[in-house]
Amino acid sequence: MYSITVREHIMIAHSLRGAVFGPAQQLHGATYVVDVEFRRSTLDSDGIVVDISRATAVLRDVLGGLNYRNLDDESALKGQNTTTEFLARFIFDRLIAALSRGELGPGSSAIESIRVTLHESHVASASFDGRI
Amino acid sequence: MYSITVREHIMIAHSLRGAVFGPAQQLHGATYVVDVEFRRSTLDSDGIVVDISRATAVLRDVLGGLNYRNLDDESALKGQNTTTEFLARFIFDRLIAALSRGELGPGSSAIESIRVTLHESHVASASFDGRI
Amino acid sequence: MYSITVREHIMIAHSLRGAVFGPAQQLHGATYVVDVEFRRSTLDSDGIVVDISRATAVLRDVLGGLNYRNLDDESALKGQNTTTEFLARFIFDRLIAALSRGELGPGSSAIESIRVTLHESHVASASFDGRI
Amino acid sequence: MYSITVREHIMIAHSLRGAVFGPAQQLHGATYVVDVEFRRSTLDSDGIVVDISRATAVLRDVLGGLNYRNLDDESALKGQNTTTEFLARFIFDRLIAALSRGELGPGSSAIESIRVTLHESHVASASFDGRI
Amino acid sequence: MYSITVREHIMIAHSLRGAVFGPAQQLHGATYVVDVEFRRSTLDSDGIVVDISRATAVLRDVLGGLNYRNLDDESALKGQNTTTEFLARFIFDRLIAALSRGELGPGSSAIESIRVTLHESHVASASFDGRI
Amino acid sequence: MYSITVREHIMIAHSLRGAVFGPAQQLHGATYVVDVEFRRSTLDSDGIVVDISRATAVLRDVLGGLNYRNLDDESALKGQNTTTEFLARFIFDRLIAALSRGELGPGSSAIESIRVTLHESHVASASFDGRI
Repeated sequence: MYSITVREHIMIAHSLRGAVFGPAQQLHGATYVVDVEFRRSTLDSDGIVVDISRATAVLRDVLGGLNYRNLDDESALKGQNTTTEFLARFIFDRLIAALSRGELGPGSSAIESIRVTLHESHVASASFDGRI
Repeated sequence: MYSITVREHIMIAHSLRGAVFGPAQQLHGATYVVDVEFRRSTLDSDGIVVDISRATAVLRDVLGGLNYRNLDDESALKGQNTTTEFLARFIFDRLIAALSRGELGPGSSAIESIRVTLHESHVASASFDGRI
Repeated sequence: MYSITVREHIMIAHSLRGAVFGPAQQLHGATYVVDVEFRRSTLDSDGIVVDISRATAVLRDVLGGLNYRNLDDESALKGQNTTTEFLARFIFDRLIAALSRGELGPGSSAIESIRVTLHESHVASASFDGRI
Repeated sequence: MYSITVREHIMIAHSLRGAVFGPAQQLHGATYVVDVEFRRSTLDSDGIVVDISRATAVLRDVLGGLNYRNLDDESALKGQNTTTEFLARFIFDRLIAALSRGELGPGSSAIESIRVTLHESHVASASFDGRI
Repeated sequence: MYSITVREHIMIAHSLRGAVFGPAQQLHGATYVVDVEFRRSTLDSDGIVVDISRATAVLRDVLGGLNYRNLDDESALKGQNTTTEFLARFIFDRLIAALSRGELGPGSSAIESIRVTLHESHVASASFDGRI
Repeated sequence: MYSITVREHIMIAHSLRGAVFGPAQQLHGATYVVDVEFRRSTLDSDGIVVDISRATAVLRDVLGGLNYRNLDDESALKGQNTTTEFLARFIFDRLIAALSRGELGPGSSAIESIRVTLHESHVASASFDGRI
């Protein structure tokens, strides 16, 4: 299996609901350094998994809807507990949607799975990894 | 598949038995920066893989039995070659035991697999990855 | 010159005032991975710059006043633009205060300068470096 | 599953063919920091996945054929688009060949899969992961 | 002293002249991950060292003249041995020129010194640090 | 000021004397990832601070006297508390000695200062920085 991974980041505010979150129930925030790995079994005719420029542009576009926001106020996230795990899946789903709209370019339909990892500090991260 | 990863570290002395280890047959030591990834297919009702505070506390507890020790003198490791690979499995087994005792909290029984990685330097690491 | 550096992190929400900040004028947040370097010309009788356990405890205590907060609502920061640079200085000042109260232990009066660095992402950081 | 990972690096020049590469169609270069993960289900009688010294030596040997070269001029790469993905597979294939020649030592025939990752910057990497 | 640091990268080909460089006398290449630290004694009225967006844009502009090039063919570098140390100074000089042209914005004249660091691998880097 | 930095690592056992060290008074160990920065005001005729191959070889040689050892048993360290700070200075002194013997090559007498940093984990390091 071949893969490429690209990295971007966002800075958001939010609060979490549930006693398990302790002080993170208060309004606070995070920098998420986001790694996205795209995988496929064979390379395209250019010898790549996906156009890395397009992949980065699509990732920036997806993250742009979250960046510099208070996630508690975002209608797209209404009623959601925006845990790091949830956000990894949320970004995964939007990348799949972009892929299905052809935004990752010709040949990208051969992508078989994607892993989204959000690093929230030097000691913690969360991922969602799924097939397309 | 969702996952979260937490990081801690230990500092231990030990020696290794076998010609393959060369100078590491002498008593020396290591800092192991330990990453533990917990994985499950669905999130719990709080939207998480596991309570990250509990996961870190359990990891600290497991590592506490090794930290600042000479592993050559530990009865729990009697007769073992405490390679980085062996220690990754050793920590994995103790995490599974803690999980089975319920120490990772309600809902943690849905955890399906765990990966333990020990970084021993900027150029080498070892892992054990297993189902529960 | 000898030095030691310890690392901790905080997760905060805030907004910034001024056109220069663009979208960061909205309420958002950040993870700051905080490195503090303590420097002195000679080691103490134990052969150290400062007790690393105390240094970490003092740093945690200082950061505890900011962690999981919305800095826009903190009375101690009233009217301040809580830029990364400002926060580096803010933490520096509180560390100096703790040092002057003797919280870093006997011999820590020999510390000559401190550098506080806040990493806000994988591509940006800010520091304050000053004499005591 | 057990694994160990070792790290080396190479510095090469090359150019890429295809409009998708934009300015990378010009002769330029890269540092690739190369991580190789070796995996097997059980440890050998020494308690290891593979002799880490041999694994590093074999990796250095494989990389030595590329290091400080202009890949556009290498006969072994004639007519190839030396993308990061392609190079990950190229290194994988040569590691498999070394393994089949017994260069990784007794017991290394139990290695089941290998992952080769090339980090080309702080924001991009490519991998090839395959069974033996 | 306050500072901020921003990070970008370039990928270049070049060769070095001199027996001391061994195999690096051949045409090869490098990824340079470039950190630039800007320092000043006091913050501006917005509470910052410099507008981080402008600083990053100026750095990208300076690096754009080198990125995806064979430095052996660049007229601006004619007759130069483009060592990592030399390139750190080259980038420093161009940043100073941009600063003197006002490209870093109002108030940036208070910047007192700049440090440019080029990481060429996980085990080597070079810097130039100078007053303005 | 120009500088270059090279990285190597060692794995040692030791114990520390003094109540301040708590459990580190027991025999334990550490991996030290060692960064050495060499600085000078002007480059030599090859355009470098120092021959990076020689610098790395000298560093390996200095570290070779410590690597895979129990420092409590080393005669060169008799009666010393081998704290990370102490070891940074110890390595600095040996590098200075190698420099004075000409082991860093012609022109290396222009080196003005050296900084030795030992990273003992992902959250702690110590340095010694001195003029020659």
